[in-house]
Amino acid sequence: MELHILEHRLQVASVAKESIPLFTYGLIKLAFLSSKTRCKFFSLTETPEDYTIIVDEEGFLELPSSEHLSVADATWLALNVVSGGGSFSSSQPIGVTKIAKSVIAPLADQNISVFMLSTYQTDFILVRECDLPFVTHTLSSEFTILRVVNGETVAAENLSITNGFVKPKMVKRPVIHPLSSPSNRFCVTSLDPDTLPAVATLLMDVMFYSNGFPSHLLFTSASGELWKMVRIGGQPLGFDECGIVAQISEPLAAADIPAYYISTFKFDHALVPEENISGVIHALKVSQGGKH
Amino acid sequence: MELHILEHRLQVASVAKESIPLFTYGLIKLAFLSSKTRCKFFSLTETPEDYTIIVDEEGFLELPSSEHLSVADATWLALNVVSGGGSFSSSQPIGVTKIAKSVIAPLADQNISVFMLSTYQTDFILVRECDLPFVTHTLSSEFTILRVVNGETVAAENLSITNGFVKPKMVKRPVIHPLSSPSNRFCVTSLDPDTLPAVATLLMDVMFYSNGFPSHLLFTSASGELWKMVRIGGQPLGFDECGIVAQISEPLAAADIPAYYISTFKFDHALVPEENISGVIHALKVSQGGKH
Repeated sequence: MELHILEHRLQVASVAKESIPLFTYGLIKLAFLSSKTRCKFFSLTETPEDYTIIVDEEGFLELPSSEHLSVADATWLALNVVSGGGSFSSSQPIGVTKIAKSVIAPLADQNISVFMLSTYQTDFILVRECDLPFVTHTLSSEFTILRVVNGETVAAENLSITNGFVKPKMVKRPVIHPLSSPSNRFCVTSLDPDTLPAVATLLMDVMFYSNGFPSHLLFTSASGELWKMVRIGGQPLGFDECGIVAQISEPLAAADIPAYYISTFKFDHALVPEENISGVIHALKVSQGGKH
Repeated sequence: MELHILEHRLQVASVAKESIPLFTYGLIKLAFLSSKTRCKFFSLTETPEDYTIIVDEEGFLELPSSEHLSVADATWLALNVVSGGGSFSSSQPIGVTKIAKSVIAPLADQNISVFMLSTYQTDFILVRECDLPFVTHTLSSEFTILRVVNGETVAAENLSITNGFVKPKMVKRPVIHPLSSPSNRFCVTSLDPDTLPAVATLLMDVMFYSNGFPSHLLFTSASGELWKMVRIGGQPLGFDECGIVAQISEPLAAADIPAYYISTFKFDHALVPEENISGVIHALKVSQGGKH
């Protein structure tokens, strides 16, 4: 298995719901007019709490500096697990379930905080740039670690970490975060960039001008599968606590339930198949020690 | 001939080029997501000087109140000349040429200032709401004056103007404004609202993210005809001076040259067929008394 360290240097930012008009100019450019920018990594997640923006340095320049933009105080790098052949077999579990044991748990054990971003096709594990030596040291026994430089995948240089110089282990799972599951059902889909212009007005409507996702706009996935959400966190989680993704993904991996996982500025969100939601909630509460 | 007084109560506003990101949220909603607003009249004109926005009261609410939005200090009403049968014969001259003698000149003679907005299909003559009694009085001999109320065209109520109570006549053509003609060639086109979503990203690019109109985006008109511009004004014209449209449209009407006419917050612009531009410039300078 290969672990790719992507070359994008990412900022994680949050915009309050009511401030989104200030950022629409930049966000539309990033989302729909990518040829106008040098940005190569852009993600926008809307939740009832806020808009979370993950964007590379080049794209970050498209956003106005504003008191209404909260920015996490670190530069993040995206890691990507690639199976040997370069493509996944469809029988493999998808999402965080697949990487729970090999990536998420070891990083949590080393007290390295991660920010997860699942997409239809792949899962990005975001780590702080300053943690990279610990990350590669922690994962080098399981993975061939490669770095993307100018679009080319090359062997990662020796990151010169002294053996044994790792961050102190955390006490495992010190905080139990409340779980909730909204009644919404979610569709996970992917869009060919060439079809983006054709759906731009629909997507802009959903992104900036509507509350919620009108059902007639649902893009059906190939499988027609629908997903339900487990939201993790009662108070905003912050960026320093480690092991939250592990707390959720380990029980899912044990039960072999596929899951997407999306971190936002304030909370974490796992998406599991609709038919698994009750079992998942139960399993997570058991693993949390039955405190809920 | 009928003169229709449309029911939209319009605001005329200007946004500086560098401030457009503050207004993109509202302008995209007005331009591309009209079902989200109660706005029924919206125009956006980009010039090298500014963006001029003409929008009804409902649409105006979509724009943020901001020091970066200059608003003309009046509410304007749009007038529309409709030929008897309701449709124009294609042999008629188009644009301001057609209404120069019947509408523009009489209003100028009565010292009523107008703001012109030609579109592919029709020409809107904007007058201040407070001037309406003078407008209807001035034009009632030539036109059947009708008012649009809740979308229905009804006879205009008696606007109870005392006969003879008109504004003082101005000294004719007191100011000679400098004329200029940029090298650009313009295409005048019309777009079916149903095709708007398909070209939204192209149009947004042109409207907000590009300098100038890339040639590959040119929508060709049915006739393939290209137009050249005469820009009127050296210093910003303001809204109080009367007779500027008349100064331009009368010589064009005398020579039977079709023209579109677009007023913006700072300047006026006439579009004439490419092959007529030299003759037009000459005729306008002659009519200005050869001062240029």
